[in-house]
Amino acid sequence: MTTRMRGEIAEQPAAIQATLDALLPRTGDVEAVARGTRHLLFVARGTSDNAAVYGRYLIEARAGRMAAMGAPSVATTYRRRLDLDGVLAVGLSQSGRTEEIVETLQWAKDCGAKTVAITNGGEESPLAQAADLALCTLAGEEKAVPATKTYTTQLAALAVLAIGLGADVDPDDLRRVPDAVEKLISDPGDLDAVVEGLADKPGVVVSGRGLAFSTALELALKLKEACYLHAMGLSYADLLHGPIAVVDAETPAILVAAGQGPTLAGTVALAERVTGAGAAAFGVGGGGRLAAASTAALNGPDLPEWVAPLGLIVPGQLLTEALARRLGIDPDSPRGLKKVTQTD
Amino acid sequence: MTTRMRGEIAEQPAAIQATLDALLPRTGDVEAVARGTRHLLFVARGTSDNAAVYGRYLIEARAGRMAAMGAPSVATTYRRRLDLDGVLAVGLSQSGRTEEIVETLQWAKDCGAKTVAITNGGEESPLAQAADLALCTLAGEEKAVPATKTYTTQLAALAVLAIGLGADVDPDDLRRVPDAVEKLISDPGDLDAVVEGLADKPGVVVSGRGLAFSTALELALKLKEACYLHAMGLSYADLLHGPIAVVDAETPAILVAAGQGPTLAGTVALAERVTGAGAAAFGVGGGGRLAAASTAALNGPDLPEWVAPLGLIVPGQLLTEALARRLGIDPDSPRGLKKVTQTD
Repeated sequence: MTTRMRGEIAEQPAAIQATLDALLPRTGDVEAVARGTRHLLFVARGTSDNAAVYGRYLIEARAGRMAAMGAPSVATTYRRRLDLDGVLAVGLSQSGRTEEIVETLQWAKDCGAKTVAITNGGEESPLAQAADLALCTLAGEEKAVPATKTYTTQLAALAVLAIGLGADVDPDDLRRVPDAVEKLISDPGDLDAVVEGLADKPGVVVSGRGLAFSTALELALKLKEACYLHAMGLSYADLLHGPIAVVDAETPAILVAAGQGPTLAGTVALAERVTGAGAAAFGVGGGGRLAAASTAALNGPDLPEWVAPLGLIVPGQLLTEALARRLGIDPDSPRGLKKVTQTD
Repeated sequence: MTTRMRGEIAEQPAAIQATLDALLPRTGDVEAVARGTRHLLFVARGTSDNAAVYGRYLIEARAGRMAAMGAPSVATTYRRRLDLDGVLAVGLSQSGRTEEIVETLQWAKDCGAKTVAITNGGEESPLAQAADLALCTLAGEEKAVPATKTYTTQLAALAVLAIGLGADVDPDDLRRVPDAVEKLISDPGDLDAVVEGLADKPGVVVSGRGLAFSTALELALKLKEACYLHAMGLSYADLLHGPIAVVDAETPAILVAAGQGPTLAGTVALAERVTGAGAAAFGVGGGGRLAAASTAALNGPDLPEWVAPLGLIVPGQLLTEALARRLGIDPDSPRGLKKVTQTD
């Protein structure tokens, strides 16, 4: 059986390439809209919110600007104005039609913020129309309910945003992403072992730190929405503050890290702690070190840490698609979900 | 069997009273340290982080200031300086000795922020010493690993912080909290039914919105750390963006809301959706409306929405303690956890 989700996973190298071609020349536009602003405020839900977590860490850790995750209910439920003068608000929605996000971005502008939209819905979408600047991803139409190529192209747009904000990164690293993703699709590592390791488990903890935390959140969301697994996405540190109690023989951990960078050592140590306690640890990325400490492992991309999340989610997408089929679920249409979610 | 946790739950009315008596006269100190600042940045982990979520919504929705949840790894792992001039950074740690939080608050000060500590560790604790202003809670020593009275007294300190920042609330509402908590301890509602409804389940989704979102996160953490339940704390809107797929006959939902306020109607509608899909919905608070839409319900406090979280967690604490014992777990000492967690 070939699912739409599997086909859309495979389209990512081309989708990321097209998005980079379109957006990398526009870092000057980002610079212009950001002039006079200092802090960032991200506004998103679901998968787009997980993408925003990548943007938030990237912009703080590499561009040196405070970046906050916004709470849309302050705008849409409490209807409270904040003083957002000097704030750059970034709204993300794949469709560009999630009313809550459009309304919150408009609210941010009314409160004095400059606004950026990141959307796959095109320049004519309500979110793009509401923003001072629209960074449109070119993922093409996505039909499977679990977002894949619209997510990785959002990450690409966020990387461009960070470059426009003066991040101390080499933009050429982005050019390596499509090939690295292609390589992961053809060789994701020990997928069968991880699928079997999760197939009879009620839940799983997914953990990563810093830039890779976004990948952990997104993989946990995928496993929840397409495999109905009790998947908890947690940062490494938050995991140790309580939820580590959940990890046992019935609850494995999936641990995500780039192949290099300051969070790798802690993630390897966590894998050793999990396996030492008799639970299974499945590594994603982390080079040879994390794989060696894990029960079974999926490959990560050969990319610098700051762009690694664009590849790190790919073996997790393949895992989600394969595990859903293994469990008898059609990953293209999980129960209770639609492609565009409206919340008030 | 009487557990320490049960004893400490019962100490909350007195602990909250003592904390309010000590801190309500200090709103002028808050005003002074906040002079010249505009945005807030909260720094915390675990239960303290859940308390900070209350502070964040309260200060945005009622004091009209942008309030962000900080990522300590930017300070401690990436070691990146941000421009925090004009930011009021608030660090929370029950012990006042969690090195990651102390280090991050010091980093915030180095980056130009004014700093406030909220801790039960006293004026001599490292966190209090690192801050421009310390708001010390008076919960007394807490021995059970799952935090209870140190959490609700943190909420009381955050309410005082919000008043000092000019929130449009009536400070006298706080004076009603100790009695409301006392009443919930003696009559938490249909505790037995909810305990039995969770006793054979692998996981549960806990959801709330706006100010009550903090309660959902904290109850989910309690159920993870003391009952080893796969408990996912999610905002109402994030739940609908994917994780709702997890809710089924094997996965009930716990839904939390104040007895009044703009989030109640949505929470009642969510309870109807969950029970309509054949899953159990357990209400916490929400007045008669949420209870009527639920499979079984715990009582909430008779308090205005802005202070309701100080009471809303109490039936959840009692639920956690009773469910842990029902499952044969000693809630005072869950596996894998210590009272003070150190993360790097």
